[in-house]
Amino acid sequence: MAVYTDVTDEDLEGFAAQYDIADVVSFKGIAEGVENSNFLVQTDDGESYILTLYEKRVNPADLPWFLGLMRHLAGNGVTCPLPIPGRDGEALRTLAGRPAALFSFLKGLSPRRISANHCAGVGAALAQLHRAGAEYPATRPNALSVEAWRPLFALARDRADEVQPGLAAEIEADLADLERNWPTGLPKGVIHADLFPDNVFFRGEAVSGVIDFYFACADLYAYDLVIAMNAWCFEPDYAFNVTKARRLLAAYDAIRPLSPAEVAALPLLARGAAVRFLLTRLYDWLNTPAGALVRPKDPLEYLRIARFHRGLPGPGAYGLVA
Amino acid sequence: MAVYTDVTDEDLEGFAAQYDIADVVSFKGIAEGVENSNFLVQTDDGESYILTLYEKRVNPADLPWFLGLMRHLAGNGVTCPLPIPGRDGEALRTLAGRPAALFSFLKGLSPRRISANHCAGVGAALAQLHRAGAEYPATRPNALSVEAWRPLFALARDRADEVQPGLAAEIEADLADLERNWPTGLPKGVIHADLFPDNVFFRGEAVSGVIDFYFACADLYAYDLVIAMNAWCFEPDYAFNVTKARRLLAAYDAIRPLSPAEVAALPLLARGAAVRFLLTRLYDWLNTPAGALVRPKDPLEYLRIARFHRGLPGPGAYGLVA
Repeated sequence: MAVYTDVTDEDLEGFAAQYDIADVVSFKGIAEGVENSNFLVQTDDGESYILTLYEKRVNPADLPWFLGLMRHLAGNGVTCPLPIPGRDGEALRTLAGRPAALFSFLKGLSPRRISANHCAGVGAALAQLHRAGAEYPATRPNALSVEAWRPLFALARDRADEVQPGLAAEIEADLADLERNWPTGLPKGVIHADLFPDNVFFRGEAVSGVIDFYFACADLYAYDLVIAMNAWCFEPDYAFNVTKARRLLAAYDAIRPLSPAEVAALPLLARGAAVRFLLTRLYDWLNTPAGALVRPKDPLEYLRIARFHRGLPGPGAYGLVA
Repeated sequence: MAVYTDVTDEDLEGFAAQYDIADVVSFKGIAEGVENSNFLVQTDDGESYILTLYEKRVNPADLPWFLGLMRHLAGNGVTCPLPIPGRDGEALRTLAGRPAALFSFLKGLSPRRISANHCAGVGAALAQLHRAGAEYPATRPNALSVEAWRPLFALARDRADEVQPGLAAEIEADLADLERNWPTGLPKGVIHADLFPDNVFFRGEAVSGVIDFYFACADLYAYDLVIAMNAWCFEPDYAFNVTKARRLLAAYDAIRPLSPAEVAALPLLARGAAVRFLLTRLYDWLNTPAGALVRPKDPLEYLRIARFHRGLPGPGAYGLVA
């Protein structure tokens, strides 16, 4: 949670002048998003906008695809930030030396304490997102898919046991298993790939918006679903909440029905999703410099989640009614 | 710039219910203020508010005085955050285990690049603040006044030369000088004591508000003025901008005329103000843990400012017309 780039008055003024918006009366860096710098912009007519400056983790070449996706989803019933074109028709421009874009503002609050109703809302929103995105070109490969995990692990392996003794061997065994058994032929398309509570807004217990599409890519729909299940259905003490999982999966299935092959693959996919976040967190944990503005997240949280899924007899454990 | 405390949905809901405000539709941690956690709250009727959670550096016993001061100033023509009382009439309550208060939202932008017109605006705003605060009980002593510098220095002295060789001796000599020559008998009252660019909002080049009164205290008005001069009138390359200083001091003097004794004391007060920020920054520099969310500010910036004032023949160097 940080703002990485300072924007001067002149830069902001010059930027805002390129849009058909009212006078900027407030401009505040917001503690949201760990990859980019985000500012809440308020204008004299009472409108709010989000200004995003893309920092180094986002590949500028991907930005037209991301902005196009948000435009496509917003046009197909998904409430997500809509890139606002400037007077020249361009949504993507440069500010303070970085790619930058202005977005519509979404009302709503990210839930801090997750209820089963939140989970149902998220399941439905994700299914709608998958359906709405079906016509958008799924041309961006998943840079963090199963094939990417071993190379990523190689960067962290030598020091993994510093975090927990035996961790390297445990990940190694999981990777071998996941690579051998990863399903082929399941339905695939544009996925969000990072649908954590920070990225979903609610009004009351109804979803009011989905944000942060900068991991979106082409991959298995059911994989996106279990990323969300892992993020939403474990309690702070790491206990799996089967009621939440059942509500999330059922709400998804009601809008985009899961095939029997997808259901059968859920435990392996969920374990894979846990290993993917374990690996990126492990890498960040070992490579975040002292004094960084963002605290790395605990990788071991996802080790516990991987272990949970590893021990399951089948998808029934997620509360699915056969 | 950070948010230190997470606020859960239930906490926020319970807190907001105590106020006569519309439904909360957005709640964002803002990267503003290094002492407290601040959130921008938006409600369904288009209003915005700032919610402040007081973190450990603020003494809770001082909060009624700070909130009373803001109420007093706002009632006397200073545009500053107005503490909003709850339905029970109380402005100060508890949220997420911390003292907390809701404030009116001020439009405006903190300038990143300072113009001479900004400086004139700041000088006038500070004089108005001093006049408006004259009737408010000046009962809070300045915990960072000249008497406090030596004890503070004692906490950093042994390691000061790690930051720059010779620093301890240089500060020691300044302290002896300042203690011996610190003026007595100059006009005194409630001062802001931290009027940096982050704490002043502008619309265009006109001041639209002053924030962050949590260093406010009783001390010399002219000392407050030179704190502002040090903060606003040095360029990024540390060059003193006499045009800016002249505009700041003249605009102040037009509203609250400086006495000859105050003018004569300015160089010493300005050196003292520089040493005060040098010392707190030095302490923070040596004591900020690795991995902290806030980067400590460079103490040596204020060493250069202290040296500038130390070498002056008199207040004429600030562009004052005798």
